[in-house]
Amino acid sequence: MLSELKEKVYEANMELWRKGMVIYTWGNVSGIDSDKGLVVIKPSGVDYDTMKPEDMVVVDLNGNVVEGKLRPSSDTPTHVVLYKQYPQMGGIVHTHSTHAVAFAQAGKPITALGTTHADYFFGDIPCTRSLTEEEVSESYEENTGKVIIETFEGMDPMAVPGVVCKNHGPFAWGKTPDEAVYNSVVMEKVAEMAYITYGINPNVDRAPQYIMDKHYYRKHGPNAYYGQGGEH
Amino acid sequence: MLSELKEKVYEANMELWRKGMVIYTWGNVSGIDSDKGLVVIKPSGVDYDTMKPEDMVVVDLNGNVVEGKLRPSSDTPTHVVLYKQYPQMGGIVHTHSTHAVAFAQAGKPITALGTTHADYFFGDIPCTRSLTEEEVSESYEENTGKVIIETFEGMDPMAVPGVVCKNHGPFAWGKTPDEAVYNSVVMEKVAEMAYITYGINPNVDRAPQYIMDKHYYRKHGPNAYYGQGGEH
Amino acid sequence: MLSELKEKVYEANMELWRKGMVIYTWGNVSGIDSDKGLVVIKPSGVDYDTMKPEDMVVVDLNGNVVEGKLRPSSDTPTHVVLYKQYPQMGGIVHTHSTHAVAFAQAGKPITALGTTHADYFFGDIPCTRSLTEEEVSESYEENTGKVIIETFEGMDPMAVPGVVCKNHGPFAWGKTPDEAVYNSVVMEKVAEMAYITYGINPNVDRAPQYIMDKHYYRKHGPNAYYGQGGEH
Amino acid sequence: MLSELKEKVYEANMELWRKGMVIYTWGNVSGIDSDKGLVVIKPSGVDYDTMKPEDMVVVDLNGNVVEGKLRPSSDTPTHVVLYKQYPQMGGIVHTHSTHAVAFAQAGKPITALGTTHADYFFGDIPCTRSLTEEEVSESYEENTGKVIIETFEGMDPMAVPGVVCKNHGPFAWGKTPDEAVYNSVVMEKVAEMAYITYGINPNVDRAPQYIMDKHYYRKHGPNAYYGQGGEH
Repeated sequence: MLSELKEKVYEANMELWRKGMVIYTWGNVSGIDSDKGLVVIKPSGVDYDTMKPEDMVVVDLNGNVVEGKLRPSSDTPTHVVLYKQYPQMGGIVHTHSTHAVAFAQAGKPITALGTTHADYFFGDIPCTRSLTEEEVSESYEENTGKVIIETFEGMDPMAVPGVVCKNHGPFAWGKTPDEAVYNSVVMEKVAEMAYITYGINPNVDRAPQYIMDKHYYRKHGPNAYYGQGGEH
Repeated sequence: MLSELKEKVYEANMELWRKGMVIYTWGNVSGIDSDKGLVVIKPSGVDYDTMKPEDMVVVDLNGNVVEGKLRPSSDTPTHVVLYKQYPQMGGIVHTHSTHAVAFAQAGKPITALGTTHADYFFGDIPCTRSLTEEEVSESYEENTGKVIIETFEGMDPMAVPGVVCKNHGPFAWGKTPDEAVYNSVVMEKVAEMAYITYGINPNVDRAPQYIMDKHYYRKHGPNAYYGQGGEH
Repeated sequence: MLSELKEKVYEANMELWRKGMVIYTWGNVSGIDSDKGLVVIKPSGVDYDTMKPEDMVVVDLNGNVVEGKLRPSSDTPTHVVLYKQYPQMGGIVHTHSTHAVAFAQAGKPITALGTTHADYFFGDIPCTRSLTEEEVSESYEENTGKVIIETFEGMDPMAVPGVVCKNHGPFAWGKTPDEAVYNSVVMEKVAEMAYITYGINPNVDRAPQYIMDKHYYRKHGPNAYYGQGGEH
Repeated sequence: MLSELKEKVYEANMELWRKGMVIYTWGNVSGIDSDKGLVVIKPSGVDYDTMKPEDMVVVDLNGNVVEGKLRPSSDTPTHVVLYKQYPQMGGIVHTHSTHAVAFAQAGKPITALGTTHADYFFGDIPCTRSLTEEEVSESYEENTGKVIIETFEGMDPMAVPGVVCKNHGPFAWGKTPDEAVYNSVVMEKVAEMAYITYGINPNVDRAPQYIMDKHYYRKHGPNAYYGQGGEH
């Protein structure tokens, strides 16, 4: 069942590991089959070096397991809420990558300071508010998804494909699981660059909007001219 | 004698090395056989790349060598004091991992700033007071263990399985030598994240207690729902 | 056509990757055949691990493709403008290396603080001004080259073989593509050292000029005495 | 001639490279045969990955080449001055390791903040004064050695086996070339830890002297009890 998507989600999880974005069993990647309304996600707490494509778990859009011998990632309700809200998303990633977590813990957005950021994120990567005690006790993972949606009200999540959740860490997404991993790697890199930039110049300002526009549209949309025709 | 435990302690020491937590001969891991009241520990000053399981040294709970051709780690009295006080501990680790040492040198606890921390440490990782001149000259390593015990008065060391010793460095522990190594790796990671977080926002506060509770109990205790049934 | 230069440019691009200066398809190296007035450059958005020497693209000094099945790097107009202005340049590199980007984002030069810097860069590595909105919309990549030329007015670009472009990132160059890569690696290293130095001592001054002179001329010019006779 | 010492010096240089202390041709290690009054040192500007033991250069205590097809390291006069002054030194290392250079550039000693430092360096690692313009123009490398000697007036260089030279970088030494490399690796590590410590607590003080004493004498001198009988 969904063996091609399982293979893709498995490969995206392994890529996350190879890129040094996760240690031990941390982090998870999912992908969606929009036609069938089914999500494939990493099992919870399984080691990357022994994990196999067939260990991926299939859940429906209410988070119920449809197929799989293992429990799905404990963050599954967050993924599902986002897929339901944003049909454009094809893959979602959660990590505890070091610098993105630090921005989450600091309760600060990752400000758009230069073209490395603008090539992939069209504006600041926002930081959510804290969840309330009620939201946490009631349905923590689902409400994590909901507070991301609240944060993106009036924004296009595909233009800013990532967020840091206050006191927690980053989520990123894309049209495919692979692209979601790519965006999570870029988010960690631009978080590191932003941190160092503030160390050099604490009063630095956001880069001019017209430079951000230029770089984003060099790589995205009908007038993109970076690469060999496909996006990325 | 205790060949299974020796293999486990050896493997835990090697894992410490593979994870980049130690250079040269630094660091040491021990494990206890509670029934026999015997501790297996890394020999002092032996290179990781030539060390063998049979080099592990067996000591009793007074720190006397029971078996082994090599001298035990010079930190053995610290390990022994902790095992005597806390029967729940099955493994103990000492490292000079970079960021945890920096918190020890700074004389500051590693504050609980987010869920990466809370997943494994239920509250701040405390920093001991300095040892007095008398404590150092009299019985340095034993008193290092005693000041850890003093620091954890009224606390459950299995809920906060690590400490930084002022001007010295980290100790971590767990139910097994393997889990102790795991906790020491997480301590170094959350120390790094905390350091970067303070760089981004010097006035950051501890994460709300209800978020810390949520994450800790997602992974630990009877209502844990992370992973495949076993803890970690 | 130009198969030897293609091989050199390919190798220089791969070296950039092996040195950890670029991730994914980021960065690009070019080289020039001055006699023919032709530039060989990395294709746009192609993965390093599948790239081959024959994928390199040949362009003329107006940036028009002369040979190659793939599109040249989107930064080609910047390279071409620099080659036209500075006949001494034999190779040019653009990266998004972490610390050099941070200085670019901070809008600060990489100050000459010590001999590691002085061995290769005879003075501060300057930071360009921001491009105006008109310069960006009109001809972004070409104007990036022009603002570098403006920044080096009255300076010898071969004595300071690199620059950080405000809000963007570093360019470096040399007599060959290989030397350009070398200089970009050194620039990233001295940027990292400068960042850490300011962390230790925010009020640090530029190193005395006579120390800078000494180290630069130990390695460069007729009285050089470092190495085995060739420069580097 | 001196083939055993050449092998040792070669191996120590390669170890410096493997430990990530140097890039390209940077850094150099030497060793002395005290009986013969001859020093073996790395050739200048030769790549580590093609270097062979027989490339090592033999010089006398005036720095004149006695044997070798290649030029000796341009830092040879610094090494020779130190060997003449300090007969206890058996090996000397110079690197541009990142954090030690940053302290050199900042013009600050690496303060003794904890036991990682005290295990190998019995007190602060000092920073020399700047060389004067005359000292630089007259005999730069020799005067680098002399300013180190001036810095250690009244101190035992074997108890604090390293220094940072203002605006330049670190030198370290030991009883053998191998021990000198070891000390240079520890110096870089404690420099990194000190930098991070100041980031966490800018007002941190030197560790109490009695803790420094304890750790230093655990590893050195007649009452040492770390390791298996040999020092390190």
